[in-house]
Amino acid sequence: MPTPVHGYAAHSSDADLVPWSFERRDLRPDDVELDVLFCGVCHSDIHHVRNDWGGESYPIVPGHEVVGTVTRIGPEVTRYKVGDTVGVGCLVDSCRHCSSCEHDHEQYCENGSTLTYAGKDRHDGTPTYGGYSNKIVVSDRFVLRIPNGLDLAGAAPLLCAGITTYSPLRRWGAGPGRKVAAVGLGGLGHMALKLAKAMGADVTLFSRSPGKEEDARRLGADHIVISGSDEQMQAAASSFDLIIDTVPYDHDLNPYIATLAAEGTIVLVGYLGPLNDTLNTASMVFRGRSLGASLIGGLAETQEMLDFCGQHGITSDVEVIDIKNINEAYTRMLTSDVKYRFVIDLATLEKN
Amino acid sequence: MPTPVHGYAAHSSDADLVPWSFERRDLRPDDVELDVLFCGVCHSDIHHVRNDWGGESYPIVPGHEVVGTVTRIGPEVTRYKVGDTVGVGCLVDSCRHCSSCEHDHEQYCENGSTLTYAGKDRHDGTPTYGGYSNKIVVSDRFVLRIPNGLDLAGAAPLLCAGITTYSPLRRWGAGPGRKVAAVGLGGLGHMALKLAKAMGADVTLFSRSPGKEEDARRLGADHIVISGSDEQMQAAASSFDLIIDTVPYDHDLNPYIATLAAEGTIVLVGYLGPLNDTLNTASMVFRGRSLGASLIGGLAETQEMLDFCGQHGITSDVEVIDIKNINEAYTRMLTSDVKYRFVIDLATLEKN
Repeated sequence: MPTPVHGYAAHSSDADLVPWSFERRDLRPDDVELDVLFCGVCHSDIHHVRNDWGGESYPIVPGHEVVGTVTRIGPEVTRYKVGDTVGVGCLVDSCRHCSSCEHDHEQYCENGSTLTYAGKDRHDGTPTYGGYSNKIVVSDRFVLRIPNGLDLAGAAPLLCAGITTYSPLRRWGAGPGRKVAAVGLGGLGHMALKLAKAMGADVTLFSRSPGKEEDARRLGADHIVISGSDEQMQAAASSFDLIIDTVPYDHDLNPYIATLAAEGTIVLVGYLGPLNDTLNTASMVFRGRSLGASLIGGLAETQEMLDFCGQHGITSDVEVIDIKNINEAYTRMLTSDVKYRFVIDLATLEKN
Repeated sequence: MPTPVHGYAAHSSDADLVPWSFERRDLRPDDVELDVLFCGVCHSDIHHVRNDWGGESYPIVPGHEVVGTVTRIGPEVTRYKVGDTVGVGCLVDSCRHCSSCEHDHEQYCENGSTLTYAGKDRHDGTPTYGGYSNKIVVSDRFVLRIPNGLDLAGAAPLLCAGITTYSPLRRWGAGPGRKVAAVGLGGLGHMALKLAKAMGADVTLFSRSPGKEEDARRLGADHIVISGSDEQMQAAASSFDLIIDTVPYDHDLNPYIATLAAEGTIVLVGYLGPLNDTLNTASMVFRGRSLGASLIGGLAETQEMLDFCGQHGITSDVEVIDIKNINEAYTRMLTSDVKYRFVIDLATLEKN
């Protein structure tokens, strides 16, 4: 029997999110059902709801930074038991047999991974609905363990903002003796600072506004470079081994590339689309610099990230909200008026 | 006492190269003097002579793919002795103490490496003159050992075309189980095929023209993809772990990026300048693909490459020319009418 659940949904690209009742599937043998405690609010939630990337079907129940408690398990589930504190991130399934899946890169599944919301279930083709709801049902392989001791509201954004920055920091070798910078201080950027610092790197924030210095230092930055200052940008020339660029809109990469050390890499994690400023390859070739890109992380690496955060006591800085205020939260996010992630407390959901 | 030498020089950006007599410096304690036997003709020789990149001073004596025999050594030279067969590549000096130099990346010297020609000597500020001449004098640290058994005319292009492709193949891990492609079949591209094959990779050539298939297979390609065929490009989607892009002019990278596997990298080694086709980052982010860039290689890696070529019997496919025909060779290079590198036989230089 499917389970009736409650949540918030968008019914069209120009409508506010409103309460909506729907069903979660009956448990398959490998399924885990959880009561959602907290769900982070990611910028891509807005993109999906507003159909910014096209091709959406409505209603959409957003939410892919989910923390909750296991309430039921299917008969084949051995990794989790009722009462465990677990998480669900951006993916709830993948083909599980392609080269990417076999290499624990389910996010790059060659047959298309299944998104936690705005996706289609691989078995019955039904739409997937996300964590803005009181319950969710997910195959155990796509469920993560939340380490003991972490604040659960602050842990929710680790499932997307955390892994999105952790994965490129690991892939391109952030650590002692390495100079790492983040561009942008939002949900992703503030996690990049915390994680790079915990990995032992020398950490810099590129920021458009000087007002963020105190906060950036508290979050882990050793240095601040004001990106609008030609003087500061020139002083930072050829400095960084790795830059995590979290800016979610089109912007000129050339000034940041000029601050990369020889063989340094700038990694895009925020912007999906055309780069309208002409990229000049000379500055890349003459210093062996690279432009990388990265999408969340695989399940094994997401668990590694959560364990790392558990060891280092790292969570996201969050503003916990009542789900009734989700539309206001979206409005505030569009002006970057949040430090640094909204997280919905699902206890505020009225189960009418 | 400086040594009078002979060579070919360009005296302006629009003049043919003509015979020119000049001097090589008296030997410093760490200097090696060599009789030049062969000198490869690189596309960048034409760019310098024609002042395509600006800022040139004339006369220019090109040539940075130099093979010769040691004729004299300074008192501090211990690594080479008279009679040794040695090579000189694109660099004859660097600051030797910056972070890049300390990490054997002299090509990325933070204080500016000294080019073999069209550069300025770090000690006395005199212009550097390249290998289109009968003798050259170079500090021993920038002299390479040519392995026994290699054809010396064919070995000359290894000093630029060889290391330019070897270095990114090593840095991005070409080897067994890896799918590697080269874009373009010229001086660089044909070396990329040979080297990638010798490293054990599965090798593909992207070519505009079907006519190159037989030659490409002889050089090491396992597969050919005709880049103008939408059908073949689509069949190659998400295939390659590494693409070495040797094309020396602006071109659209998006179709090649689409053929990269998840976490694959396309490395630019041929084109220095603005990318006028808008790069779409979505296809990079959604598959974790990177755009890299690479410039020749450091001295230690160049020696490693030469030793690798010695072990595998790899040289460049060359057309040996009389130095009197250098201007005709430039004209033919501009229409890619060479398989695959011109090499000047310096025995043809009349020492008038």
